Amino acid sequence: MAVPLTYAGAGVDSKAVGRALGGLLRAARAPAVRGYGRPLLGPGHFSGLLQVGEERLALTTDNVGTKVLLAEQLGSWEGVGEDLVGVNVNDLSAVGARPLALLDYLMLPRPDPKLLATIGKGIGRGLRQAKCALVGGETAIVPDLVRTPDLSGTALGYFPPGRSPLTGRSIRVGDVLVGIPSSGVHANGFTLVRRLLERARTPLDRPLPGERIPFGKALLRPTRIYTSAAEALLDRHLAQGLAHITGGGVRNLSRLHPSVEFTLESWPGARGVFEWIVATSRLPPKELFQTFNMGIGFVATVRRKDLPAALGALAEAGARDARVIGRVSPGRGVRLPSLGIRYEGY
Amino acid sequence: MAVPLTYAGAGVDSKAVGRALGGLLRAARAPAVRGYGRPLLGPGHFSGLLQVGEERLALTTDNVGTKVLLAEQLGSWEGVGEDLVGVNVNDLSAVGARPLALLDYLMLPRPDPKLLATIGKGIGRGLRQAKCALVGGETAIVPDLVRTPDLSGTALGYFPPGRSPLTGRSIRVGDVLVGIPSSGVHANGFTLVRRLLERARTPLDRPLPGERIPFGKALLRPTRIYTSAAEALLDRHLAQGLAHITGGGVRNLSRLHPSVEFTLESWPGARGVFEWIVATSRLPPKELFQTFNMGIGFVATVRRKDLPAALGALAEAGARDARVIGRVSPGRGVRLPSLGIRYEGY
Repeated sequence: MAVPLTYAGAGVDSKAVGRALGGLLRAARAPAVRGYGRPLLGPGHFSGLLQVGEERLALTTDNVGTKVLLAEQLGSWEGVGEDLVGVNVNDLSAVGARPLALLDYLMLPRPDPKLLATIGKGIGRGLRQAKCALVGGETAIVPDLVRTPDLSGTALGYFPPGRSPLTGRSIRVGDVLVGIPSSGVHANGFTLVRRLLERARTPLDRPLPGERIPFGKALLRPTRIYTSAAEALLDRHLAQGLAHITGGGVRNLSRLHPSVEFTLESWPGARGVFEWIVATSRLPPKELFQTFNMGIGFVATVRRKDLPAALGALAEAGARDARVIGRVSPGRGVRLPSLGIRYEGY
Repeated sequence: MAVPLTYAGAGVDSKAVGRALGGLLRAARAPAVRGYGRPLLGPGHFSGLLQVGEERLALTTDNVGTKVLLAEQLGSWEGVGEDLVGVNVNDLSAVGARPLALLDYLMLPRPDPKLLATIGKGIGRGLRQAKCALVGGETAIVPDLVRTPDLSGTALGYFPPGRSPLTGRSIRVGDVLVGIPSSGVHANGFTLVRRLLERARTPLDRPLPGERIPFGKALLRPTRIYTSAAEALLDRHLAQGLAHITGGGVRNLSRLHPSVEFTLESWPGARGVFEWIVATSRLPPKELFQTFNMGIGFVATVRRKDLPAALGALAEAGARDARVIGRVSPGRGVRLPSLGIRYEGY
């Protein structure tokens, strides 16, 4: 109880992962592919970008992670099916692509028809929100590999005529940062959440003080799908950069531009599950803001003159809760002045 | 020792999987996606097919399966990295697409840099053969979910100008079936292989009688990558249908056309690992031919008049071992007359 938990202490050391991953990428290097179909951007951004003839495409893969262990504990699987869609299509939106197709990859210890139908229901809910089609998948029954189902997927997006990939390179000092709230922790940081649950023994079947829905249900709330919000901005060319706030927390912003500072002056206070995480983990805010979305799951960078139009477009697309959370300043990295936090880069 | 092992007995009941999967697909059904980007073909063929503007694309996802458990037992990981590429790009070739981009999804119990570099080396070998680029991926360190690394991936392919998706609908009675040998069991049927190994206790560090390389190494031989062979046929419009022989064995052929019979009159005899599987499992051939590739990993359907050109193109592309294995006859399903096997459909 005395030692604050860190993410490394919870079994995930992101530096070691980064080093190991670098080794994989170096070893997997193959000659550049050129011609009618070719990659435009390698690993590193929210999605890979490709060119085929006149068309550009975005491709990304992600999983629901250890959120499945809480889903199993609570016997509640529909939400993580929806997460599987959300974690992927939001990464497409972050490069300006419109979701087109999803493939799911499920690993299961046994073929449980009821479980698969429940997960499928969640996938369907996600697909309808993202206006995306399921075009294939793989369901592996591998009792020797997993005890709990694992959910991952891959999504392909395209750029409608007149729209280009959005990498954030047009971002300028003076642009405004608009944040769209998350629905909760989404599908990141669950290894730490589960350690905190073990330690705090907070009951999952009752709401947290001041909240309405049971705590377990609040933790399992599916990843908010930002497709409509992003499409509203993209169709009107109102965004200079878009970021999906996932595993690296607000550090994800620095992927958009290497030589400006993303100054987060008006980050909302921690509420609900985030208030519980702050209180229970006793981790420094710097650790929390690079592990969780901390209440904002998607950020758009817009020109100051476009702000009213952007907020209007977002409200029309159902994101009435979008709000200004900061601005782009000279410098580099990400800063939260009120908390004294500064991240140098990604 | 008395009861022959079946695939269901080995922990995988394909009928139960089929039922469970049907429930997922029904539940995940979402409104049809129409417009500039749209799916052309849903789940069921070797790859999903999509249309974006004037371009058509193929998308598929697959995993290495429980072959990883043998890789772990033998401490040999490079080959399964190559498998990860092969299992995916071969499914692209089977719909006539040229591989363009791969995303990997690795689940690991810990971030092991040496292991990842070894897997990466195998991925690189596969990518070079398939002339494909790695454009992204996800490496999940999830000690609470897996004890052994799991390797899966997704591949995107395109259709060069002048080439159309190949579903097999142009196949006609009288066409010739050309088979290209596999390099071994590839990445299918390993749940059964491992049960057989437990039962037979065949030493893995010595060659089987009459073979040269140690048995364990023969079992781990990476999936043969058929990209060059398929491209050679596709560029010259010599194939009416292509099939990747994977989990469903020769039954995969019936995906190509619902109302012809694929008559396999000249299937090669079981050698090496397949000879061992036949002898050890004592399973009826009908079971084996719907579980393993049984020596042929890729099949092309060609017009009889195109046969010399097809064999020439394959030889030029390095597949000098391609051979006629049968023909297309009136009827339906798949038949191996010499073994008295008949499969009604997929």
